[in-house]
Amino acid sequence: MNIAIPIFDRITALDAVGPYEVLSRLPGARVSFLAASEGPKRTDNGMLALTADATLDELPDPEVIVVPGGPGTRALMKDEQVLGWLRAAHETSEWTTSVCTGSLLLAAAGILEGLEATTHWMSLEILAEYGAAPVTRRVVEQGKVITAAGVCSGIDMALTLASRIAGEEVAKAIQLGIEYDPEPPFDAGSVAKAPDAIVDLVRSAAGRYA
Amino acid sequence: MNIAIPIFDRITALDAVGPYEVLSRLPGARVSFLAASEGPKRTDNGMLALTADATLDELPDPEVIVVPGGPGTRALMKDEQVLGWLRAAHETSEWTTSVCTGSLLLAAAGILEGLEATTHWMSLEILAEYGAAPVTRRVVEQGKVITAAGVCSGIDMALTLASRIAGEEVAKAIQLGIEYDPEPPFDAGSVAKAPDAIVDLVRSAAGRYA
Repeated sequence: MNIAIPIFDRITALDAVGPYEVLSRLPGARVSFLAASEGPKRTDNGMLALTADATLDELPDPEVIVVPGGPGTRALMKDEQVLGWLRAAHETSEWTTSVCTGSLLLAAAGILEGLEATTHWMSLEILAEYGAAPVTRRVVEQGKVITAAGVCSGIDMALTLASRIAGEEVAKAIQLGIEYDPEPPFDAGSVAKAPDAIVDLVRSAAGRYA
Repeated sequence: MNIAIPIFDRITALDAVGPYEVLSRLPGARVSFLAASEGPKRTDNGMLALTADATLDELPDPEVIVVPGGPGTRALMKDEQVLGWLRAAHETSEWTTSVCTGSLLLAAAGILEGLEATTHWMSLEILAEYGAAPVTRRVVEQGKVITAAGVCSGIDMALTLASRIAGEEVAKAIQLGIEYDPEPPFDAGSVAKAPDAIVDLVRSAAGRYA
């Protein structure tokens, strides 16, 4: 089973690495990091590079697509090479998924039209511009299309997807293998739970925190 | 503030990328991925490469050390270049931390002697061989030394560390920025919670799941 994760400059690393860490453990899974051109892609803050080992053209028909987000998605929303790859790959995929603002690329490719979908909480309204119905659930399943909210929600999405692909036993074994038994020291991980002052802080310094 | 994350071949990517995603958002933080030699380091399953942008020698005195884990730690437990760097860096660090089997490197460097510490649940007994007292808490704070349990626990550790460094407001803003409001679809993320059959499955196929 080929799992394709398109990456790009100004990606948010955890959007890609969370689902990779889950899905690479599925029996028979081969995760490929792809981009328009091979080589290192630097993250949103420039402090890390993930390597694309193949080009998009080399893997036109993966069974699973996981589109991560990050500030770099904004430029790609007008990139016909990437959008065309997404449209074509989605035609034959078994699952088409996204994390964070990766869903904006699915939206720009026309894949989310008429579907409920989610993204990072600061970008929800953009989805509507492309004909999707933004919802604030953490993982949104619409047939074979699954979108996840911001960054860390990709781990929840991937475990859900793992159970759809290989059953609950395997998904639970993966969860135990990566010790995903979260104990966040604070309860400020969503707009609904964070104090207003924290939401304001993130909005006012979005380049740092979001 | 320099935050050093030593990486290596056969690393578990999320061990490093979870804390990076949190700590890189701290005001004034600069996260550096280091290794004995610069260049791409491939992960445990070979499916991804993270780039080391500098050598260990180039950053001997980071304020924060985060040692990730993975099968590649076993060879490094006898690597005097890496252990020597850890010992020297720990002398001047403000915080020395690990995720998953990264703590085995701290242990091999003698840094955990006489301290409570944790690691991935399948490696806990190894800590005792190096004079540490293994405990099953998810994040174990011992003065400036913080060890975390397996893989995903690095996110919890890093948020705890973020609050120690920059206060709770900043830590909560980071948590909201990365939407760390976990909703695992199953409750099998620790040995205490997973059904026995799942624990047995992971133990019998540790190369796949753990």
